[in-house]
Amino acid sequence: MQVSYTAAEIIAITQPKSTRGATTERVQGIAALGDARPGDLSFLGNAKYKSEVPSTQASVVLLPPDYAGEPAANQLHLVLENPSAALARLCARIEQTLWPQPVPGIHPSASVAPGAKISATATVGPLCVIEAGAVIGERAHLQAQVFIGREAVVGEDCWLMPGVVLAASCQLGTRVRLQPGVVIGSDGFGYEFVQGRHEKIPQVGNVVIGDDVEIGANSTLDRARFSQTTVGEGTKIDNLVQIAHNVRIGRHCLICAQVGISGSTTVEDYVVFGGQAGIGGHITIGKGAKAGGQAGITTDIPAGAFVNGTPAVPFMLERRIAVLQQKLPELFRRVDNLERTARGTEKSSS
Amino acid sequence: MQVSYTAAEIIAITQPKSTRGATTERVQGIAALGDARPGDLSFLGNAKYKSEVPSTQASVVLLPPDYAGEPAANQLHLVLENPSAALARLCARIEQTLWPQPVPGIHPSASVAPGAKISATATVGPLCVIEAGAVIGERAHLQAQVFIGREAVVGEDCWLMPGVVLAASCQLGTRVRLQPGVVIGSDGFGYEFVQGRHEKIPQVGNVVIGDDVEIGANSTLDRARFSQTTVGEGTKIDNLVQIAHNVRIGRHCLICAQVGISGSTTVEDYVVFGGQAGIGGHITIGKGAKAGGQAGITTDIPAGAFVNGTPAVPFMLERRIAVLQQKLPELFRRVDNLERTARGTEKSSS
Amino acid sequence: MQVSYTAAEIIAITQPKSTRGATTERVQGIAALGDARPGDLSFLGNAKYKSEVPSTQASVVLLPPDYAGEPAANQLHLVLENPSAALARLCARIEQTLWPQPVPGIHPSASVAPGAKISATATVGPLCVIEAGAVIGERAHLQAQVFIGREAVVGEDCWLMPGVVLAASCQLGTRVRLQPGVVIGSDGFGYEFVQGRHEKIPQVGNVVIGDDVEIGANSTLDRARFSQTTVGEGTKIDNLVQIAHNVRIGRHCLICAQVGISGSTTVEDYVVFGGQAGIGGHITIGKGAKAGGQAGITTDIPAGAFVNGTPAVPFMLERRIAVLQQKLPELFRRVDNLERTARGTEKSSS
Repeated sequence: MQVSYTAAEIIAITQPKSTRGATTERVQGIAALGDARPGDLSFLGNAKYKSEVPSTQASVVLLPPDYAGEPAANQLHLVLENPSAALARLCARIEQTLWPQPVPGIHPSASVAPGAKISATATVGPLCVIEAGAVIGERAHLQAQVFIGREAVVGEDCWLMPGVVLAASCQLGTRVRLQPGVVIGSDGFGYEFVQGRHEKIPQVGNVVIGDDVEIGANSTLDRARFSQTTVGEGTKIDNLVQIAHNVRIGRHCLICAQVGISGSTTVEDYVVFGGQAGIGGHITIGKGAKAGGQAGITTDIPAGAFVNGTPAVPFMLERRIAVLQQKLPELFRRVDNLERTARGTEKSSS
Repeated sequence: MQVSYTAAEIIAITQPKSTRGATTERVQGIAALGDARPGDLSFLGNAKYKSEVPSTQASVVLLPPDYAGEPAANQLHLVLENPSAALARLCARIEQTLWPQPVPGIHPSASVAPGAKISATATVGPLCVIEAGAVIGERAHLQAQVFIGREAVVGEDCWLMPGVVLAASCQLGTRVRLQPGVVIGSDGFGYEFVQGRHEKIPQVGNVVIGDDVEIGANSTLDRARFSQTTVGEGTKIDNLVQIAHNVRIGRHCLICAQVGISGSTTVEDYVVFGGQAGIGGHITIGKGAKAGGQAGITTDIPAGAFVNGTPAVPFMLERRIAVLQQKLPELFRRVDNLERTARGTEKSSS
Repeated sequence: MQVSYTAAEIIAITQPKSTRGATTERVQGIAALGDARPGDLSFLGNAKYKSEVPSTQASVVLLPPDYAGEPAANQLHLVLENPSAALARLCARIEQTLWPQPVPGIHPSASVAPGAKISATATVGPLCVIEAGAVIGERAHLQAQVFIGREAVVGEDCWLMPGVVLAASCQLGTRVRLQPGVVIGSDGFGYEFVQGRHEKIPQVGNVVIGDDVEIGANSTLDRARFSQTTVGEGTKIDNLVQIAHNVRIGRHCLICAQVGISGSTTVEDYVVFGGQAGIGGHITIGKGAKAGGQAGITTDIPAGAFVNGTPAVPFMLERRIAVLQQKLPELFRRVDNLERTARGTEKSSS
């Protein structure tokens, strides 16, 4: 993050209700209250850190209206209705400098097949490959070394980071953001066992990604056997996630890193999967269901359920089992004792 | 999938024993009986869906000889010995249009070092890099942005999809198919702890891949310390799989997504690993053994065994444990009661 | 591994104290004692394999001073203080032939933005992309198809293998070695749920990698929300590992394949994580702590602890639980029997 803002520029971006104090420092970083140094901006986003404000070394501090303390020397307090939202606005501004608006056009080093349709407002960066029949929408940004296969479609305002592969016939909606190394449209893992060998079942479907989807670095999404593997509008997928063929993911789901979803499973809207969770094939995860990290799910999960563990059970049961498992050594001793007592009782009562 | 076949073309591809009815629709998609719309082809591959045939909207339906119903209006029934096999033939045909036969030759944007030996019938696509001494076999297809390291060997009829890395000295047999982003020949993870630091043990072996192996997107296979990491003929590996250095995988195995196999382990022929299974180092998995998803294996597994869970135990035992774990809260209450009773009995019998 | 050394060359590299016997074979491979064939070099690194020396077919054998046996015909024994260290020296020599010293300069096919600062001694290989403001240090080696984002910094003597992505503003120390497909600086996974949608929290921090760090193939490290995601000096990370935003990893850690570390977690120096372990967010793993493969950690772990299982508990407890779980069927039967006996006792004592 290479930033440098004057106090006046910060005020213009964050639009505070009022200010207290002043600073001659330029803002060159953002940090938590306790970590901040002169030249940093900090913020009080959670009331429990209130006690850290008086001693922070930050040059600029974003504060809520109910914070009454005075700034230190050479420190500027900005009083805002919502310091977190103001910080987000500042970060969005910084983001534009990290990744400035790309210049439309096709870099001379890109390899574009005849018959590809590329919008005049799109940016095709250095060393991209675009095969025949592909369509690149308005203002789409293929940053560098991106591959777009035959007849694939990139929607408006998409951003494909370096090394992304969008294989033949796959489709992206608008504002889709693909982190580096994402592979969309690899073959589904389908074979038939014939005379001692695994014969490939051709995978001739595609992958269709909805609007506002984001997919993390090096994640992989397989094309359907036929028909489509789908990801619904607004769903966010983290890094190193595997989505198998014919999976259907709903809208506004959150799928954390290293999750794997097996073939032909349906994930309804607003589902949340913790990191490294594994989801079996041919099942349905109901709307709004949640699974903890490393959960292993092999059966349908009802809407709204929160499950954990392998095999996954309701979260509270899993917590209870986890506690009791640690008491297993004690339980075995207790049962040993009961048996000893019972043998004694039997003798004495015989 | 952009397809368009007349009824006559479908008949020519699938070679039915007989036909019933007729359709004027072109076949532009494939779908399950219940999902199919006019213009789709569907099929009865499993007798349990027989009741869905009369109401399907598919324009063409592949049916087994024992299906007796009549087609709907503007619907064509094709009667075949094996509808699934006929469908596979059709999909294979569609696959050729998705990925048409590449034109032999070296794309002008590729970077080929002097001394690389490239067959005249091979295709080296745009922006590939081939280092000195590499050998590319007959009809091999490096699609785009592929990297082939020094002295590496690509066998006949291999297909390396965009972004594949085959590092120095590694070898592929014939008809090997590598999905996008596969890395073959990264360094094994080997260090010696010397005076508070991890000193690298040079990894100077290679990776040797047998004929007809397929490897999924973004999977990684490490080169051996010395000697070879090997994958036997006909083995299929899914996406995001990790194969460590000096692993030896047999023939015709199935390794599902996100599996990890630790260093120097031997996996014999016909082994099947479910998704996210983790296999420890320096062990042997016997011929035809199977492990369930997320299984954690740290000891040798005998041939033919089916194991599950972490640590992995025989499948039926793991199922039984999983059920009993959910009864742990009840078991603790039962033991509480027994203890209460025992205390009462002791008192009353004393 | 394509090697060919005369016996004299092997002697020059390994510097033995004394030799026994002689061979006319050139050394063309390295193999374990039992696997070696004529033309191979082998070694006795562990006394337990001593009995394999007399029958090995290796042409050259590295042996410790206390090994007294005589070489076979056409076999050369080299007596060394430390055969393993001598082997490491030989492997380091072989490594230089696998990956010979790159020639400094910028390959004409690379795409370098104006304003990038590239040392004259650095090597920028074919089809690399370097954005504006990036800095490439002395003798750094970008092998091929590497991407370096705006204002990113590559330290001296780094080696970035094919397909590596170092995103904007991220920084590498000296001698950092990145295996193929590593992504550094992808967006952290941060969203706020607003009116039924996940709104992106801009991720404007960076990633800072210390000296002598090595990162395995296709691993991903996310940039911080603001501030930095950090990896300390000398830490080694295996393949397909996920490091989330704002994670701080100490010095000299070992992180095995497919581990995932969630956001804002601190990992202190000398920590070791086994393969596929999952580490929750906002926790601290104390200095020198270890976690077994597939462990699931959701709470702070004290320095020096060794934990295992999900949820992770002290290693010895986890081993005990694992054994007792397999006795659960038996335990339930024992409690059934106790209850039956208790009912009988109650009756008889009533």
